[in-house]
Amino acid sequence: MNAPRLDADARGVYLITVTPFTDGGALDLASTDRMVDFCLEQGVTGLTVLGIMGEAPKLTAEEARTFVRQVLARAGGRVPVVVGVSSPGFAQMRELADSVMALGASGVMVAPPATVRTDDQITAYFQMVSETLGPEVPWALQDHPVATGVQMTAGVIVRILRDNPSCVMLKHEDCPGLAKLSAIRAASERGEVRRVSVLCGNGGGLFLPEELSRGADGAMTGFAYPEMMVGVCRAHAAGDIERAHDLFDAYLPLARYEQQPGIGLAVRKHLLAQRGVIASSFARRPTPKLSAADVADIERLVARQTRRLVELG
Amino acid sequence: MNAPRLDADARGVYLITVTPFTDGGALDLASTDRMVDFCLEQGVTGLTVLGIMGEAPKLTAEEARTFVRQVLARAGGRVPVVVGVSSPGFAQMRELADSVMALGASGVMVAPPATVRTDDQITAYFQMVSETLGPEVPWALQDHPVATGVQMTAGVIVRILRDNPSCVMLKHEDCPGLAKLSAIRAASERGEVRRVSVLCGNGGGLFLPEELSRGADGAMTGFAYPEMMVGVCRAHAAGDIERAHDLFDAYLPLARYEQQPGIGLAVRKHLLAQRGVIASSFARRPTPKLSAADVADIERLVARQTRRLVELG
Amino acid sequence: MNAPRLDADARGVYLITVTPFTDGGALDLASTDRMVDFCLEQGVTGLTVLGIMGEAPKLTAEEARTFVRQVLARAGGRVPVVVGVSSPGFAQMRELADSVMALGASGVMVAPPATVRTDDQITAYFQMVSETLGPEVPWALQDHPVATGVQMTAGVIVRILRDNPSCVMLKHEDCPGLAKLSAIRAASERGEVRRVSVLCGNGGGLFLPEELSRGADGAMTGFAYPEMMVGVCRAHAAGDIERAHDLFDAYLPLARYEQQPGIGLAVRKHLLAQRGVIASSFARRPTPKLSAADVADIERLVARQTRRLVELG
Amino acid sequence: MNAPRLDADARGVYLITVTPFTDGGALDLASTDRMVDFCLEQGVTGLTVLGIMGEAPKLTAEEARTFVRQVLARAGGRVPVVVGVSSPGFAQMRELADSVMALGASGVMVAPPATVRTDDQITAYFQMVSETLGPEVPWALQDHPVATGVQMTAGVIVRILRDNPSCVMLKHEDCPGLAKLSAIRAASERGEVRRVSVLCGNGGGLFLPEELSRGADGAMTGFAYPEMMVGVCRAHAAGDIERAHDLFDAYLPLARYEQQPGIGLAVRKHLLAQRGVIASSFARRPTPKLSAADVADIERLVARQTRRLVELG
Repeated sequence: MNAPRLDADARGVYLITVTPFTDGGALDLASTDRMVDFCLEQGVTGLTVLGIMGEAPKLTAEEARTFVRQVLARAGGRVPVVVGVSSPGFAQMRELADSVMALGASGVMVAPPATVRTDDQITAYFQMVSETLGPEVPWALQDHPVATGVQMTAGVIVRILRDNPSCVMLKHEDCPGLAKLSAIRAASERGEVRRVSVLCGNGGGLFLPEELSRGADGAMTGFAYPEMMVGVCRAHAAGDIERAHDLFDAYLPLARYEQQPGIGLAVRKHLLAQRGVIASSFARRPTPKLSAADVADIERLVARQTRRLVELG
Repeated sequence: MNAPRLDADARGVYLITVTPFTDGGALDLASTDRMVDFCLEQGVTGLTVLGIMGEAPKLTAEEARTFVRQVLARAGGRVPVVVGVSSPGFAQMRELADSVMALGASGVMVAPPATVRTDDQITAYFQMVSETLGPEVPWALQDHPVATGVQMTAGVIVRILRDNPSCVMLKHEDCPGLAKLSAIRAASERGEVRRVSVLCGNGGGLFLPEELSRGADGAMTGFAYPEMMVGVCRAHAAGDIERAHDLFDAYLPLARYEQQPGIGLAVRKHLLAQRGVIASSFARRPTPKLSAADVADIERLVARQTRRLVELG
Repeated sequence: MNAPRLDADARGVYLITVTPFTDGGALDLASTDRMVDFCLEQGVTGLTVLGIMGEAPKLTAEEARTFVRQVLARAGGRVPVVVGVSSPGFAQMRELADSVMALGASGVMVAPPATVRTDDQITAYFQMVSETLGPEVPWALQDHPVATGVQMTAGVIVRILRDNPSCVMLKHEDCPGLAKLSAIRAASERGEVRRVSVLCGNGGGLFLPEELSRGADGAMTGFAYPEMMVGVCRAHAAGDIERAHDLFDAYLPLARYEQQPGIGLAVRKHLLAQRGVIASSFARRPTPKLSAADVADIERLVARQTRRLVELG
Repeated sequence: MNAPRLDADARGVYLITVTPFTDGGALDLASTDRMVDFCLEQGVTGLTVLGIMGEAPKLTAEEARTFVRQVLARAGGRVPVVVGVSSPGFAQMRELADSVMALGASGVMVAPPATVRTDDQITAYFQMVSETLGPEVPWALQDHPVATGVQMTAGVIVRILRDNPSCVMLKHEDCPGLAKLSAIRAASERGEVRRVSVLCGNGGGLFLPEELSRGADGAMTGFAYPEMMVGVCRAHAAGDIERAHDLFDAYLPLARYEQQPGIGLAVRKHLLAQRGVIASSFARRPTPKLSAADVADIERLVARQTRRLVELG
């Protein structure tokens, strides 16, 4: 069953999923099913697969298709599924996008390559993206300078939105990004550009309460406790800003630890395995392994988080 | 009066100070005095001036000397004062180092330039640093890849410590840095290299409790609430790890906000001005200014922090 | 018919070929055949396909296999054919390498990803490459810091050669690279590491005569006039160093022009089309197009080069 | 005596000079005088000091002033003298610019810091430069992405020229830069922006003949044989394009060798010392030293160059 089509009204939490492997390193489709169920039970409103934290570049083309097919089948059309299709070349991007849209994906997500630098190079790149994908494929613009090295101003993002009607979402994860987020929303309010969905991923949601206050529609990021983002978004939508912060603060020490560059994926998979979501914490190379000291840190942080959540009620 | 000489036994909190300006942009020496007093009252065990967050590159050579002289005079030999002397060339580094040591500084701190990349280039660079400074000037090695782009492995740091007896301290602010910190301490325990002081600055102390558990001697970083780092270090030294985490967690939401790249300095100066430590939050260009929304964010975070500290007792 | 296996005795000119397209952007297999014939007629001793200048990232996996199959069939086992297999992940690298080796390729070439920085990261990466390829696949190490951002010292290259017996060739294109080349050859002469084939690509062979004098075995690079590299290598092998320089100097003004970053591929394809080697100068996006002024520059340089070659005899 | 004021009519060759040191590493003022005389005898129309190849970052502030004073005194007002004032901060830039303008310099040159990336950051930076320098100081915009990492489009350069009336010159050394040069000249011809002087430094003048044909007014770069650039510019101005290319081609093999990153400065100082212009080839650290093989390369290239010039007549 096809997932709902991605559009500019998307809101809530689009969780960036991991890709589960067995201890031997093969795709683990049973864990994939369990992970999809877990996310939906926690209240996510969408799923994003084949992102960087989904180890997309470590999969073969066939594995990528198999994994997407499994996620789509298990999600069963209940939430949109967005697929990362960033590629070194347009032929590969078209091939992957055509393939996942044919499988029933809701839309795709594209980050710019490190080679584009100037405003003109960036906007020209995304026009080629639109032409490559065709007018029927809705796509999310990923603004993630820490990973890509590409810095887009609010003005450039507005130009991209104007030039490309099929771009319906901004995955915003610049840091500092609060001012940029305010500027993009202000441009829409002044009628300069249509309003798109803005989901935030700033450092794994490390600024989520503030981003919601600036006009973000939710989060698109990964965290072993997606219920945090779901809870923060719901409290915020209900107007209970202090409750949103309370929840956020309770998870922040662990979220901060899971957001460490490099080792973060190992932390996330360790936690998901511990929660019973995936069978193995295996990540494909090159990924650092957790030391005993890392595991001790995590255990302390989880215990403290659990106590804090009890206190909060 | 000369400050105590920097040595490998340094511990506690060496606060990286801002450089106070008047609203008109001139050095504010009265605020400098107040800031020194404030730091000492909060329990810092050392001061570090002319770092990146001290706007060192925005001062003329004469202003830099004036500021250092004022800090040294006000500190009155009560704590060591370390001066950042990273320079594009060795002639400038020698000139600045000689000048501040003559004024009575305790030691200097050096980060590598972005142009060194390989292990050999890095170790060769720091040998030139030692030769430039001479054997009598104790120095701290600043490992700060986010700012410099230079990645040093634990092995490279061990080589630098071996090659350069006058290097007595590591300012550790790599991220992820916990494994590196453990490796450097293990090398000393195995007798492979002498033990030096390791003070951490990882994202403004955002991993301080974990770093202390890995063998760090304290923190060298900036934050508008230095009492957080002082309290965490003291609780940890007293063996009360949970208390250290409790304190840390109470300040974490604001610390995270103050650590935003780019706008962080404006946040810090705003808070220091609000606390009455400095007269003006003025920062020299190019520094982004706080918006009304930023100020509202800060006010909420401070109010929540205050309440949380009351709860903690 | 399988191409000869790549080994450490490779010498002469391994030309990095372009990938010919039709004006409509499809693979042009007839031009591919003509290009292979042309290269062999000019005296190249090997072919390298799917390099950066071969627009490898712009091909789909299926196109890449089709193109390699065609080149191998046309070369008919007369010269070794090396295939670039650098990939963002090891699963993709293995898939591509297995596939082209099964088609009869002689070996593969791998450049490091931009994410590895320290000496240890670099050597660890290439150990994973060897494990990924398996002991039966000979491979060439591509040292190309301008394209990859990865700087490898002579010492690191020696470590890689020691750790990985299946690495039989260094494609050397660091700049300045003469001192590094001398250091690697000296390490072999001292018996510290086995001697491998070193083929140079420094800026499209812009230092070929000097590199041959330092112990390089030849060139691996692209240029619309491969007869230049062939002639320089032959003159050098015959001991006629001045003749090697004479030939080189005659082509240098045009080679310099063809080596401009970005527009260079357009220049090369324009020249190859003009020489009748390929039917169309079409390059896949994003590639800048030649202006009328560029074409006028090229015409002048070709006319001058022709006159100079006549003078040389 | 003050040097003539820099203006938009500057043309010919503004040589980027080295900074001569004694074998002991001190400023060598006698060699400085000889170097100025040599440049003027060769026909340069301007001098540029304290550039990157002038080892500016390796001088103390006092040494920089001493050197500029000596150059100005020896030049005696016969040609404009431009001083590089790029600094990590505006206070330092103002101090250096005020100081050299007071000594009688003709104008200053500024490159952007590596930290500016987007079009808006770049144009904002140069507005701060203009404000820092004041309206009375004419300045040259240095567009040198290989050294700075900052990529400016033709459109951004046009914005900078429009915003800053005191910017009178573009030092153009992007590569590929021919299309950008054409675009900037076309913008002036269409009346979109006033015409400024454009002097080229692309890889040490490695594209000088083509740049002159695109509308450049001359060269601003360094080379141990400034007579090459002078001769090329004069032949071009006289309409003898082929003669310009003949001269250029004769020097190209050596120019290419002198333009190697890193070791290039050692080559240049070696050649200037050999020509008797400076007493010592000493360069301050960190600069690689020439090996015997390097020196042999240089000797061969000089001998071949000499023969070729005799043939040319």
